[in-house]
Amino acid sequence: MNYSMIFFIIGWVFIIEAALMAPSALVALLYSERSIWAFAAAIGLCLLLGVPLVRKQPANKVFYAKEGCVTVALSWIVMSLMGALPFVFSGVIPSIVDAMFETVSGFTTTGASILKDVEVLPRCMLFWRSFTHWIGGMGVLVFLLCLLPMSGGGYSMNLMKAESPGPSVSKLVPKVRSTAKLLYGLYVALSLLELTLLLLGSMPLLDALCTTFGTAGTGGFGIKNSSIGEYSAYIQSIVTIFMILFGINFNVYFLLYMRKPKEALRCEEAGWYLAIIAASTLIITVFIRNSFPDLATAFRHAAFQVGSIITTTGFSTVDFNVWPAVPRAILVLLMFIGACAGSTGGGIKVSRIVLLFRTMTREIGQIIHPHMVKKLKFEGRVVGQEVLRSVNAFMVAYVLIFAVSTLFVCLDGFDLVTSFTSVAATLNNIGPGLELVGPASNFSCFSDLSKIVLIFDMLAGRLEIFPLLVLFFRDTWKKF
Amino acid sequence: MNYSMIFFIIGWVFIIEAALMAPSALVALLYSERSIWAFAAAIGLCLLLGVPLVRKQPANKVFYAKEGCVTVALSWIVMSLMGALPFVFSGVIPSIVDAMFETVSGFTTTGASILKDVEVLPRCMLFWRSFTHWIGGMGVLVFLLCLLPMSGGGYSMNLMKAESPGPSVSKLVPKVRSTAKLLYGLYVALSLLELTLLLLGSMPLLDALCTTFGTAGTGGFGIKNSSIGEYSAYIQSIVTIFMILFGINFNVYFLLYMRKPKEALRCEEAGWYLAIIAASTLIITVFIRNSFPDLATAFRHAAFQVGSIITTTGFSTVDFNVWPAVPRAILVLLMFIGACAGSTGGGIKVSRIVLLFRTMTREIGQIIHPHMVKKLKFEGRVVGQEVLRSVNAFMVAYVLIFAVSTLFVCLDGFDLVTSFTSVAATLNNIGPGLELVGPASNFSCFSDLSKIVLIFDMLAGRLEIFPLLVLFFRDTWKKF
Repeated sequence: MNYSMIFFIIGWVFIIEAALMAPSALVALLYSERSIWAFAAAIGLCLLLGVPLVRKQPANKVFYAKEGCVTVALSWIVMSLMGALPFVFSGVIPSIVDAMFETVSGFTTTGASILKDVEVLPRCMLFWRSFTHWIGGMGVLVFLLCLLPMSGGGYSMNLMKAESPGPSVSKLVPKVRSTAKLLYGLYVALSLLELTLLLLGSMPLLDALCTTFGTAGTGGFGIKNSSIGEYSAYIQSIVTIFMILFGINFNVYFLLYMRKPKEALRCEEAGWYLAIIAASTLIITVFIRNSFPDLATAFRHAAFQVGSIITTTGFSTVDFNVWPAVPRAILVLLMFIGACAGSTGGGIKVSRIVLLFRTMTREIGQIIHPHMVKKLKFEGRVVGQEVLRSVNAFMVAYVLIFAVSTLFVCLDGFDLVTSFTSVAATLNNIGPGLELVGPASNFSCFSDLSKIVLIFDMLAGRLEIFPLLVLFFRDTWKKF
Repeated sequence: MNYSMIFFIIGWVFIIEAALMAPSALVALLYSERSIWAFAAAIGLCLLLGVPLVRKQPANKVFYAKEGCVTVALSWIVMSLMGALPFVFSGVIPSIVDAMFETVSGFTTTGASILKDVEVLPRCMLFWRSFTHWIGGMGVLVFLLCLLPMSGGGYSMNLMKAESPGPSVSKLVPKVRSTAKLLYGLYVALSLLELTLLLLGSMPLLDALCTTFGTAGTGGFGIKNSSIGEYSAYIQSIVTIFMILFGINFNVYFLLYMRKPKEALRCEEAGWYLAIIAASTLIITVFIRNSFPDLATAFRHAAFQVGSIITTTGFSTVDFNVWPAVPRAILVLLMFIGACAGSTGGGIKVSRIVLLFRTMTREIGQIIHPHMVKKLKFEGRVVGQEVLRSVNAFMVAYVLIFAVSTLFVCLDGFDLVTSFTSVAATLNNIGPGLELVGPASNFSCFSDLSKIVLIFDMLAGRLEIFPLLVLFFRDTWKKF
């Protein structure tokens, strides 16, 4: 285990986090809010811890997958701890567990909140909550890779692999650092586009910024208690479109940027993803038609909720917890499917679902034609055995964590749907679930134990489980 | 596709079913019940359809896995159709869908019932319902293999593979036919032992027979509305022990029979299975302690319900639907785990769960030690790639059927727990679920569409999905 490299990178995480808190401090300054001191103290502490760690580059740069996982997992834990400080220091969220819950929910782009009333929060705190979504969406270590001028040792690829969602990571360009820069470039460009369109809909600047952060990171913290419900139909439609856009594999945007529209259109995962959205929206529209004045309104709300849940954003325009059984069941299914790999969305990911589905049809094909050897293809390429194996192992770990978490949450004694969907909503980084954790409610009802379990689930969901599980194996910590 | 062999075997299924209805007709005769005519008519129809099909042995005996799957799937459908006739003819269950539901529930050893009051049924019908459990438990085609003196073409192995539960089928002895006979021998012996012990507890003969059939097949049709709740603590304990015994891999009994107790004790699957039962029983006992006069009673009811659910029997002594959230969640988890492969129980099977768990830890080991090649072992042997692949494909098909079925059942508009657990209870061949399909209720509330979906799920659960899915692929039906 290359501890010196790990500490070096974590040192940079501290410093970057200090920098990322600066805009929130600026907001506090602009609105002359007292909470600026909370940010100043947190920034100071981050620098105090970070600067000594990065004073000299480590000599030994050997960096394997194991180091990648450990670094990413520890970075996210550190980030969340430091990110919770402004909430605690300012007294906005006095309990440390609650503040951690809120911050982890932000960075992992979950959007589940323990706050009963967000509208009383100082504006700088609302800004910080939403900004954590934007940081977490593309990933802090991917951001760090853009900045860190160090090379060699394979650390960049192993960090990228451990932090990026999806069954396999494809580099857009040969160099990992250039890939990271390109990804952030596309991310900023799309975010600016959404911001502009929201401002054109005469949304106030702070609202537009926070909504953009939430949409881009597929987070879901709102700055109103009614989430996006109070805004105009135009704004709701823009948010719907951008939620869906941010759930698409960024490869597609890269291909478009490289002027290869044909290749971009051929992306199988995005095709399935859009097909699932279209089908779900249509079915739900049929079932909720009578609750709205006209078909167009029903369609708009159906599309919004489908986009919000499948991309694991978690914004809402209406309380879908009161919808009939079929739309509710479809939304629960979409919670698990999730967005595309290589997007900012969470969940199991469409590509994994497609791969799993193909392993099944291949198996049946094998029964019918025992002597036929059929290779499994995806996006026009043969899928390697090790990818399939890791997809399967991911699913097992996923179900295991799901089951154990549900049991712990059940200790609080709420109904099974609440317990089940609270885990589904956090492990898939969505935000709202059903019943007591429905879109009109929040997670404040849970005990501290449950909150800690759900914090673990949010991190496991964002980091796709393995980096976090690796921490718990003794072999990881051997020096050899 | 070797159609002549398939029809020949299905012909025998008709004839065997006629023979298996005879004991129920005898019960009707003994109690001079009018329903004897329903059985006589059904037997006549079975013979009328079966005899012409078996008049000459097919010349072409070539029989692949595909033919095995199709034969087994069609046999089970035919069996269920014919088995429903006595209910319809006698007017006990006038609706054909309901009668099919009850019969499929019987043969697949599910034990879910649409009857609101079973105590008004003629005794011959109660006997037939429970007897279908006993037949379905070990399997009709395994039974047929004991009798059919035909050899060659590999048909016996392919039938056995398609009908027996578990990720892989092990022949106890080199010849499939002798294996089938041994399995039925052990099955009869264990059943007789339970019957004797129940009779010693002064249970009436018919009650003891029906309870034994239900326990042995891990079915769960009771002949009282309160299931096993009205019987003495002694009888409840005997049933608990035998439910658990019938959920163990029959290999263990074969090894004991061959006087190899050491090998028998080394069975990994049975070890995990018993460990899960012990742990679940203890946890549940703690949570329900206060609802019962003393700890021993709480333990007895906990053990009964755990044994009943993990072996997918579905008997009950109390209404566990009113238990707190943790015991309910544990029971839902046990529904999915299921019993051992090679037993009469349903569910996903302990061996599959253990294999899946090991694929996960192997994957994490691979991250920590990228250059280590680790073979996956189970029961002391290396597990082949094709077994792992088929286990994974099974899980995918399982989840897919689960999701689609739940959506269909949701159309009836019941709460999510009812819809979810009704599918869990049928796909895992258990019987009762929670809420509206809890142990104190029944499945009569569902629409015909839902019932048909649940019938499909029960068959898919018993045949472990693939034989049934193969029917839906066009390639299967090509003559080539």
